[in-house]
Amino acid sequence: MSAKYTIGLDYGTNSVRTVLVDVANGKEIATAVWNYAHGVKGVILSHDPNLARQHPRDYLDGAEVTIKKALALARRQVRGFKPEQVIGIGVDTTGSTPLPVDANGQPLAFQKKFANNPAAMAWLWKDHTGVAEAAEITEKARQLRPQYLAKCGGTYSSEWFFSKILHCLRTSPAVFKAAHSWVELADYVPAALTGTEAPDRLSIGICAAGHKAMFHESWGGYPDAEFLSALDPELGALRPRLQSVAKTVDQPAGSLTADWARRTGLPAGIPVAVGAFDAHLGGVGSGITPGTLVKIIGTSTCDMMVAPLSAQLADIPGLCGIVPGSILPGFYGLEAGQSAVGDIFNWFVNYLQPMGKAGTHEALTQAAAKLAPGESGLLALDWNNGNRTILVDQRLTGLLIGQTLYTTPAEIYRALIEATAFGAFTIIQRFEEYGVKVEQIVNCGGIAEKNPLVMQIYADVTGRPIKISRSAQTCALGSAIAGAVVAGRARGGYDDFAAAQKVMTGLKPKVFKPNPKAHQVYQQLYALYRKLHDAFGTRSGNGQLFDVMKELLEIRSAARK
Amino acid sequence: MSAKYTIGLDYGTNSVRTVLVDVANGKEIATAVWNYAHGVKGVILSHDPNLARQHPRDYLDGAEVTIKKALALARRQVRGFKPEQVIGIGVDTTGSTPLPVDANGQPLAFQKKFANNPAAMAWLWKDHTGVAEAAEITEKARQLRPQYLAKCGGTYSSEWFFSKILHCLRTSPAVFKAAHSWVELADYVPAALTGTEAPDRLSIGICAAGHKAMFHESWGGYPDAEFLSALDPELGALRPRLQSVAKTVDQPAGSLTADWARRTGLPAGIPVAVGAFDAHLGGVGSGITPGTLVKIIGTSTCDMMVAPLSAQLADIPGLCGIVPGSILPGFYGLEAGQSAVGDIFNWFVNYLQPMGKAGTHEALTQAAAKLAPGESGLLALDWNNGNRTILVDQRLTGLLIGQTLYTTPAEIYRALIEATAFGAFTIIQRFEEYGVKVEQIVNCGGIAEKNPLVMQIYADVTGRPIKISRSAQTCALGSAIAGAVVAGRARGGYDDFAAAQKVMTGLKPKVFKPNPKAHQVYQQLYALYRKLHDAFGTRSGNGQLFDVMKELLEIRSAARK
Repeated sequence: MSAKYTIGLDYGTNSVRTVLVDVANGKEIATAVWNYAHGVKGVILSHDPNLARQHPRDYLDGAEVTIKKALALARRQVRGFKPEQVIGIGVDTTGSTPLPVDANGQPLAFQKKFANNPAAMAWLWKDHTGVAEAAEITEKARQLRPQYLAKCGGTYSSEWFFSKILHCLRTSPAVFKAAHSWVELADYVPAALTGTEAPDRLSIGICAAGHKAMFHESWGGYPDAEFLSALDPELGALRPRLQSVAKTVDQPAGSLTADWARRTGLPAGIPVAVGAFDAHLGGVGSGITPGTLVKIIGTSTCDMMVAPLSAQLADIPGLCGIVPGSILPGFYGLEAGQSAVGDIFNWFVNYLQPMGKAGTHEALTQAAAKLAPGESGLLALDWNNGNRTILVDQRLTGLLIGQTLYTTPAEIYRALIEATAFGAFTIIQRFEEYGVKVEQIVNCGGIAEKNPLVMQIYADVTGRPIKISRSAQTCALGSAIAGAVVAGRARGGYDDFAAAQKVMTGLKPKVFKPNPKAHQVYQQLYALYRKLHDAFGTRSGNGQLFDVMKELLEIRSAARK
Repeated sequence: MSAKYTIGLDYGTNSVRTVLVDVANGKEIATAVWNYAHGVKGVILSHDPNLARQHPRDYLDGAEVTIKKALALARRQVRGFKPEQVIGIGVDTTGSTPLPVDANGQPLAFQKKFANNPAAMAWLWKDHTGVAEAAEITEKARQLRPQYLAKCGGTYSSEWFFSKILHCLRTSPAVFKAAHSWVELADYVPAALTGTEAPDRLSIGICAAGHKAMFHESWGGYPDAEFLSALDPELGALRPRLQSVAKTVDQPAGSLTADWARRTGLPAGIPVAVGAFDAHLGGVGSGITPGTLVKIIGTSTCDMMVAPLSAQLADIPGLCGIVPGSILPGFYGLEAGQSAVGDIFNWFVNYLQPMGKAGTHEALTQAAAKLAPGESGLLALDWNNGNRTILVDQRLTGLLIGQTLYTTPAEIYRALIEATAFGAFTIIQRFEEYGVKVEQIVNCGGIAEKNPLVMQIYADVTGRPIKISRSAQTCALGSAIAGAVVAGRARGGYDDFAAAQKVMTGLKPKVFKPNPKAHQVYQQLYALYRKLHDAFGTRSGNGQLFDVMKELLEIRSAARK
């Protein structure tokens, strides 16, 4: 029997990546990356720093270029490799990244009159133009549909589906009017590859819909028309044109069209899985299973767990989402996250530039590694970009305490690392407080790959072993696994994710074990972290300083006017 | 009538300075500086970072060299100048800087067997070897003589007279035993110049004794023998060998000896004033008078006011000292201070080195000046070196709040400046809460001279005009004024300080006026500063975070063991 392969297509912020994976062992045979052609590093910007868009043309061009290149590489890597050995495709993307489409499901940006209109393009996950609309949606849901908020941590974000659509309605009514509907990037790509873009054929994934568009079976899918109309009658009018059923990633969106087969060299007719957010398929690629916490650690983190649908899960305050089937079919997907991790270290290195050019991440890490826990007398809060879990509050800011006249950059760098570890520990505790036991922690992502000091501190702070995912491209690998599952055993794939993950995922041999002495010191420091966390981040904490950060932001925005 | 001059001798941490001043207008005719010959920049160090001593030989050599040089310069500056026109000398020094002396009042360090023994030298103001003894003295006074503490802000410092002597007794008993007595540097220099070192002739100043040696008329001078014996019987046995009367700086310690006249070229027999601490004579040189707050702003600050002896002054909590006659004869001298001001800016520039070599004080000041109050969203506490006034707590540390992913070094630099301004404002408020009205603020010292942005921020924060002393060497000028007063009108000097200050001191024309709009923003920020100040610095504040900084220090010291 000849080897079988699947393709994972991973749409990031700046580029798209295709990984060709051996179904028998998860080995990544070939990887091809293409940087988006439009905008600045693939992102279309404006004078408004909140605006971030992408041109949908890049999504299609990127698929074509990278699949072709990956196949060419595979031919060089594997003697006798043939594209016909590819049995399925999976797709993950950033999100929520919705784009307005016409009645045939084609992006408005493909129409000449909208070709240069940012409102007609894809609204990238980090587009924050809908801040006011997010607040409005949160407020309205609090009054009318509190159940909607309970599933997404209590606050609707400006990064999410309806905030963006409502902002378009308010600020670019011509685009809103011209749009028949709006589609998540994660749904658009599989639809395009399989020619199922038209509304009557379109498959949408529960991952994107459930986490960031308040889609839930218990209230009949997306928020009801009455609620949306309360925000704006035109938004309510959109409701019937949205899909009513959302699918999990073990289901095909369709089969690769002849046209796409010709463009890429792949066999026509192979199944393309329903799409999902990159982080969630990254969880799959890291081997997520009940009891395993997967943390994707980069500029920010995504922290994921799954729990059997049979588990009686309460809503967990502060979690970004609890959605059946969103990560693994057949399980609740639980998503938490830290708003900034690598971004905080990057801020310190790039904005403060301590010691000038000498203050690199490498040099600071090396110096920080020589310090003992607690030795600096410093403690920080990891809120430079707000707090996603468990406070769900973008209007929180950083804090550093304990500076003397002798405090060094390495001491601060280590305190910032420790702060993110305390933030991570707070999330673990929140999972367990609500009955979701964390039996194993698997990290992946850039920082997990590159900085062993950070991983050791995470082990010492949490008092638990920290394992690292074997793959360095877990999102693309997770997509390839979805491709193997939609292909099914008959075509040489797998019946389900459990079977596929068992052989296609794994861990690196190096495990970061907690040092008991360090853990003891960190327990003391964590008690103080938690005291500051509660004093500045809640209204009920020990200390009544909840208003301090908010008032500073008010004063700041007044001063900036 | 020919012009008359006086000499101000100013003993600093690294050097001694002689200034020759025209009595008629305060003009500084000649200045000579000599760096101490012993130790590192004049300070004898050891492996113990708390140890800082000076060799008394440097004090005598420095007087000789700088007076001779100043006279030589004056001859070049003023046609027909003659040393006989010098009518008096004043002396200011660092303190508390006590030195052990023999039965003739000669420093033990001049004896061969003690020549290289740091315990036999002068214990420089910043020697912190007596930390444990300071805590012991504070504790014992709290139990037995609470009135002693009330006059020095509630805590006896390791930098002060008895902490150092008790530490010597405990750790260098041979030196303690060999010492007949201990003399403050401010008293030793005038005594040496006038040949009055012997115990039966020695004059001691109320300034040093009252502020840092718990000397007060109401309890008969120094702490009583019973109290000192409770600390150690040998300390109690020293009590009768200490002076029982302390004098103000309008009184002469004696007349310049023939030997010193020969060594320096000055006329023999001219009066030398009783000595005082540099900051206090700096207050005099800045024109201190009731209603005027003088701030000497350098690495730290000394904040001084005077109030008529007729005023019914309560003890003011948190003030370093309230001593009759300590700054100006006939007035209470009130001393407060900030533990670090320039030192915090220096820490940021020298330890963090933001932007490497580009992050100079000048560049950061320039960039910080472009920011509007409140614009950064940052707020800091100025406690990197503890808090002297009003919390009197060395175990407090720095705090920075409000950082985002875009916070710049200039924003932090400005927040640090603002923090010191808030600290300064807190001191002003404490004075006024206890009935000492601040009608005018006069700043002097390195930062007042060099950084107009800092001065403008102080004006904007306090909402009051900030004036700058005309002289850049106010301590030496204050000493020269004391020289003019002890000379008296008959010799061409003055009857009293008021008359001398009127002509010999003044202000620079530039006044920093508060900007009402900036002041309004700073009032909002100050409310938040005060909230953090009280939460972290007191047990009674809004917020119960008093233990956070302390516990971090405990954890730190455990980690460093």
